[in-house]
Amino acid sequence: MSNVYEKALELHEKKQGKISVVSKVEVKNREDLSLAYSPGVAEPCRRIAANKEDVYKYTAKGHMVAVITDGTAVLGLGDIGPEAALPVMEGKCVLFKEFGGVDAFPICLDTKDPEEIIRTVKLLAPGLGGINLEDISAPRCIEIETRLKNELDIPVFHDDQHGTAIVVVAGLINALKIVNKKVEDIKVVVNGAGAAGSSIIKLIKSLGAKNIIAVDRVGILTRDEKERYDFSKKELADITNPDNIKGGLKEAIVGADVFIGVSAPNLLTQDMVKTMNSDAIVFAMANPVPEIMPEDALAAGAAIVGTGRSDYPNQINNVLVFPGLFKGALRAKAKKITEDMKLAAAYGLAGLLKDEELKKDYIIPDAFDPRVAEAVAQAVEKIAKEQGICRE
Amino acid sequence: MSNVYEKALELHEKKQGKISVVSKVEVKNREDLSLAYSPGVAEPCRRIAANKEDVYKYTAKGHMVAVITDGTAVLGLGDIGPEAALPVMEGKCVLFKEFGGVDAFPICLDTKDPEEIIRTVKLLAPGLGGINLEDISAPRCIEIETRLKNELDIPVFHDDQHGTAIVVVAGLINALKIVNKKVEDIKVVVNGAGAAGSSIIKLIKSLGAKNIIAVDRVGILTRDEKERYDFSKKELADITNPDNIKGGLKEAIVGADVFIGVSAPNLLTQDMVKTMNSDAIVFAMANPVPEIMPEDALAAGAAIVGTGRSDYPNQINNVLVFPGLFKGALRAKAKKITEDMKLAAAYGLAGLLKDEELKKDYIIPDAFDPRVAEAVAQAVEKIAKEQGICRE
Repeated sequence: MSNVYEKALELHEKKQGKISVVSKVEVKNREDLSLAYSPGVAEPCRRIAANKEDVYKYTAKGHMVAVITDGTAVLGLGDIGPEAALPVMEGKCVLFKEFGGVDAFPICLDTKDPEEIIRTVKLLAPGLGGINLEDISAPRCIEIETRLKNELDIPVFHDDQHGTAIVVVAGLINALKIVNKKVEDIKVVVNGAGAAGSSIIKLIKSLGAKNIIAVDRVGILTRDEKERYDFSKKELADITNPDNIKGGLKEAIVGADVFIGVSAPNLLTQDMVKTMNSDAIVFAMANPVPEIMPEDALAAGAAIVGTGRSDYPNQINNVLVFPGLFKGALRAKAKKITEDMKLAAAYGLAGLLKDEELKKDYIIPDAFDPRVAEAVAQAVEKIAKEQGICRE
Repeated sequence: MSNVYEKALELHEKKQGKISVVSKVEVKNREDLSLAYSPGVAEPCRRIAANKEDVYKYTAKGHMVAVITDGTAVLGLGDIGPEAALPVMEGKCVLFKEFGGVDAFPICLDTKDPEEIIRTVKLLAPGLGGINLEDISAPRCIEIETRLKNELDIPVFHDDQHGTAIVVVAGLINALKIVNKKVEDIKVVVNGAGAAGSSIIKLIKSLGAKNIIAVDRVGILTRDEKERYDFSKKELADITNPDNIKGGLKEAIVGADVFIGVSAPNLLTQDMVKTMNSDAIVFAMANPVPEIMPEDALAAGAAIVGTGRSDYPNQINNVLVFPGLFKGALRAKAKKITEDMKLAAAYGLAGLLKDEELKKDYIIPDAFDPRVAEAVAQAVEKIAKEQGICRE
């Protein structure tokens, strides 16, 4: 067992979990008790009963995010069940608090049925300010998130999809500045058309890209092959591949300006990189082993390389986004997370690095840059308020 | 608006809720991140996937209680809905932490359907060490708790029922010492045969009482009138009223040694108290106005009077029990809360006061007596381990 696993195990056992619930009020005497609990507490109850929106005024709802999973797609471990998913969910709650100051509570559901997951999350919503779906397998996660977004009036966000997409787009915004290309002109290949791939494709399209090619395990998505696609891939086939090219990654990558991998180790070869356009950008985010190792991509001629790894430059790390995104959305009392808010988050994150700071190995802020969460939060809060999707 | 309500409202608005989720681990640098989250967190996940019981070793599950309501019977306010119930549930979580050191999180469910409540709580169980049901209307609460106790392997406890019962029994143990009566010999009248009344009756029976009369809004429960009873009252009719007496409270109370009211204001008159046995014990717990005011009961000849009020002696207050009860049950890793554990909690609480300390106006420890939670916890932990109902 490697050192990091041994140490992590020790830490988890010593701490007996990573989160705790604390009181924000003192209860040292009868008066404290009469205010925090009976009889005083009856008054905020009465106010909320008279006007449901007052729950934001008198309770922790407006600051409380639930991190919800069914344990079906945890890290790279797969369907390990709700109990085994708990350390990751607690970890996510820790990151929410430590990076964004957001209260978050882990909920591991003992069901894999999408309808039941949707129903359960809706039943939990009265006490929650927002919902972060986590590590739910595709394509179920897409259906679950879409339904919950439509049926609830609080922010619902599947981080595995959109968190990744926002950081990728932030990185892309800065990378394009360095290579001096316009997003309208580039050809982007997204390898992996699952939950993350689908959100990345949509957000890059919102950014302005016109020529995006999606590639899944079988090959390039095309409008002619829809019978083999689930609903999500059907949607992608409609908005990608304008020239209707066919084949696999090898065919897709020729002349591409950008490769984005959310797939599996070692799928992108040096020979493929050599067929890309000049000043190629490669985001190889398979974890822990990327689609191509950074040194190999650079040797094959790529100009800028990013991965999901912390031991290489340009780490595409979700922690750069979700704490600030929820911080901003909750502060704005936004009823949902829109595509424009995601794009604003990406611009807010990218914009932290001034043009003169940008370098091929520094296209995205460091996860521990203390400005990150607030920059993302402000960008998200501003656009949410402009869009008129907030509680007054 | 009275001063306490005004102050409570101010406090709730200023604090924006009364609970917060905090991290037990620091995340200040890459190494911290690699241990609390990816990649290190994968190791506790793998351990739990291999052995589900390890979730107690590596997560907060074993310390985490959910305070769950559907908002149908909140304080004396009735069915005010899940949002309006949240201040009370947060308050309960505060008491869990401040009095018992137990982590507790509020869950307000947007459904009143018992089947759906049962199902939802079961779906939430993987991340929870225990479940405290709260402010769910009778008789639904009894069915919900019974089913959950049978179908889950973590402690499930409806505080409105059993918390009250345990404190009543603790008070009764000490009160009987003062008046020098044996529990086997006494006649007890319980006025109110709802959720709390039902649990009180059962626990007093476990304590050894043989002659208990239950009285509801219509009158004394008897074995001849079962067609008008719900399942819970049918059960009570079977175990109470051995002489099968008939009538109302007026008839029931004649010659009684103990009156226990969990009903409504002013139902017990001085004339009724005068017909009780000598050295009568009166626990009048209707809130905020009891079945009889203490000064009136004493004037009519009662020896010992307790109420739910903090402005009179002998306060029968649930906060004396639930924090310590869960503290002990979680520490023992008990799979359930048994009748014996409730009785042990009552004895543990009562035993804090030495015989020579006992007085007619001091039969139960003060809520702020710092020894209370640990005394209850130790009593509960000990019996749970003896009963062999704990995880090893």
